[in-house]
Amino acid sequence: MHSILLSKGRMEALTDGIFAIAMTLLVLELKVPDLPKSVSASELLHKIGEQTPAFFSFMMSFLYCGLLWVFHHLAMHFIRHLQIALVWMNLLFLMSIAVMPFSCGLLGHFLHNRAAQEIYFGNMFAAASLMALQWLVAKKKKLINEDDPRASRAMGQQLMVFPLGLGAAMLASYFNPLGGFYALTFVLLGLRMWQRISHRNQPTNP
Amino acid sequence: MHSILLSKGRMEALTDGIFAIAMTLLVLELKVPDLPKSVSASELLHKIGEQTPAFFSFMMSFLYCGLLWVFHHLAMHFIRHLQIALVWMNLLFLMSIAVMPFSCGLLGHFLHNRAAQEIYFGNMFAAASLMALQWLVAKKKKLINEDDPRASRAMGQQLMVFPLGLGAAMLASYFNPLGGFYALTFVLLGLRMWQRISHRNQPTNP
Amino acid sequence: MHSILLSKGRMEALTDGIFAIAMTLLVLELKVPDLPKSVSASELLHKIGEQTPAFFSFMMSFLYCGLLWVFHHLAMHFIRHLQIALVWMNLLFLMSIAVMPFSCGLLGHFLHNRAAQEIYFGNMFAAASLMALQWLVAKKKKLINEDDPRASRAMGQQLMVFPLGLGAAMLASYFNPLGGFYALTFVLLGLRMWQRISHRNQPTNP
Amino acid sequence: MHSILLSKGRMEALTDGIFAIAMTLLVLELKVPDLPKSVSASELLHKIGEQTPAFFSFMMSFLYCGLLWVFHHLAMHFIRHLQIALVWMNLLFLMSIAVMPFSCGLLGHFLHNRAAQEIYFGNMFAAASLMALQWLVAKKKKLINEDDPRASRAMGQQLMVFPLGLGAAMLASYFNPLGGFYALTFVLLGLRMWQRISHRNQPTNP
Repeated sequence: MHSILLSKGRMEALTDGIFAIAMTLLVLELKVPDLPKSVSASELLHKIGEQTPAFFSFMMSFLYCGLLWVFHHLAMHFIRHLQIALVWMNLLFLMSIAVMPFSCGLLGHFLHNRAAQEIYFGNMFAAASLMALQWLVAKKKKLINEDDPRASRAMGQQLMVFPLGLGAAMLASYFNPLGGFYALTFVLLGLRMWQRISHRNQPTNP
Repeated sequence: MHSILLSKGRMEALTDGIFAIAMTLLVLELKVPDLPKSVSASELLHKIGEQTPAFFSFMMSFLYCGLLWVFHHLAMHFIRHLQIALVWMNLLFLMSIAVMPFSCGLLGHFLHNRAAQEIYFGNMFAAASLMALQWLVAKKKKLINEDDPRASRAMGQQLMVFPLGLGAAMLASYFNPLGGFYALTFVLLGLRMWQRISHRNQPTNP
Repeated sequence: MHSILLSKGRMEALTDGIFAIAMTLLVLELKVPDLPKSVSASELLHKIGEQTPAFFSFMMSFLYCGLLWVFHHLAMHFIRHLQIALVWMNLLFLMSIAVMPFSCGLLGHFLHNRAAQEIYFGNMFAAASLMALQWLVAKKKKLINEDDPRASRAMGQQLMVFPLGLGAAMLASYFNPLGGFYALTFVLLGLRMWQRISHRNQPTNP
Repeated sequence: MHSILLSKGRMEALTDGIFAIAMTLLVLELKVPDLPKSVSASELLHKIGEQTPAFFSFMMSFLYCGLLWVFHHLAMHFIRHLQIALVWMNLLFLMSIAVMPFSCGLLGHFLHNRAAQEIYFGNMFAAASLMALQWLVAKKKKLINEDDPRASRAMGQQLMVFPLGLGAAMLASYFNPLGGFYALTFVLLGLRMWQRISHRNQPTNP
């Protein structure tokens, strides 16, 4: 009964809302320095400069959330209709997004701390895995539009790259303080190149 | 006059917005530990571990809000059109959702404190009761689509389970420190099983 | 040129978003008491009880914003299309909504302080006046749908009641510490009764 | 493949959401004064008066974000469909909006500090430039609807005025403490006058 009542539109509205809020709340980790109002410009700049790790963490988290949002958005085009299981998996996925401002703040504060890195990449990994899992569940329940089997297969493969890349980042940050960042950059660049190549090989769309 | 002017679409937009924000603001109760930047990984992990009750409260509140959102969403499908009384009841319902970050933060801080538990379950109870009451008012005003009387009756019954379950949780947490959590889990699992059984007995939908 | 490009849909989306967020941010004024975790239930309750003015301010502000949202929503049904002047007036109106969490927090903290009351009612007055002004501008620019002249006149009259009521509240709170609350309640009840009476006198709608 | 799957609707939903949240989070920089509850009205007013720069910064930032939102909204009408490059540029643009509450708080705290002014105008400049850049990229990729070449050219020209005006403000605030504010006001008034003039010269639309 439920399967026919759940509209994609409202699920997307909640998803867009939680993404928009989580992405904007990230800014709360950037603090206005607690200095007297008469402070000199150079002192203020210096104090703000100390927050560089927080800015780095903000930008990385914002773009990563944006990336997940784009892929969630693309993946939803292939879902013909929702079922209650998918709604719950999406809520778990959204929970992993809602917790990002905490992980981001933690990394911004303790950029070189292995525990902060593991929690941060762990959070990203959880989000990516839950997105990939949603796809697998949707596939098993035959909710995916297979009109263009090549496109839907490519979509599924790309969604699997995320958890792999982030698992690699977690492993790397265990061995090397900044390894996680390198591994992540490497995987995302690889994904982008692959997209360009598979794009080129495709017949042109109208 | 008003009844024909109130669109379901914008009411849903406000509802989705408030749910999305309340669910994401829950994260503000998870605090980045106030430690020097040079702290060791194990110390940081230990300090974050002390926040376990806050994480527990965050996850429970997020999923409970998600559950209410799903049911609100399903129930709205049965509402043919709005009337001003329904709009006001929905605003009261949304107020009980908007206050969740406070109750959740309270429980996360004082997990084993009976007063915090009663306020937390009381908030959940208020939200569930206002949702059930909306249904009863809509029914009395003949705003519910009865095309499929069986489906609408099932919907109404499920909405009544929430306040009952949460009333039980409030009572239980009065007698036993963790009784509320057990009672709530029990009721929700019962609801899920009932759904599966009634689902199985239904004629298949297209 | 611009007048035909501004869609009501996106203006409503921004409006719903800002309302949803301002209404939910009100909760940030309710603080989890800063007490040791082992505090007794009665002490915790007592400490939360001290925040009663903040709860009162939260509920009043939430419901007032809800009321404005409902009226904005109803008024928008009469607007045939937007013009740049209306968009800017709506942005000013939204600014007066966005500032509500500050005014609400101020009143919650200093409930019996005349300055806090004047600022609070002043903010409400500004919001109500900007909403009424929007209507007058739309009327002057012939953007209001006059298909049902009786309905549009009633709408306009109701929008004028708000600033009058809040002006009265501001005056009253100048003379008597709690006068503002009484005046506001009185005006809103009057509005409600008037609606019921004019509703009864109307020919039935389909 | 991606180009045909990205819907303008969801991009707009995320955009509206992030604008609504960033614009409302600006209020968090207005703090309820930390005074005893029994403080006199005049003392409270005096203390709030000290936050005048924060109010000024709040209002300027809210209206500037509103202005960008209006122009983004108008520009989107000319975009026929999205491509992945535009989505990413829009995400970068949204990042510059999401960071506004920080820049706004900084300026509100250190209004006369050159570093705070440069960061504030720099943020505005980045947002305006990214919006203008989006237009140039869309133009290069032939995604702009040229049915009315005059209207689309006027749109493009207006979008270029923003970065120029803010670049001037940055330069001016380098030479004179309040120069930036004067320069910005000047440019925006010029933009408005230009709009009125070009509006007058246009053939009337239906």
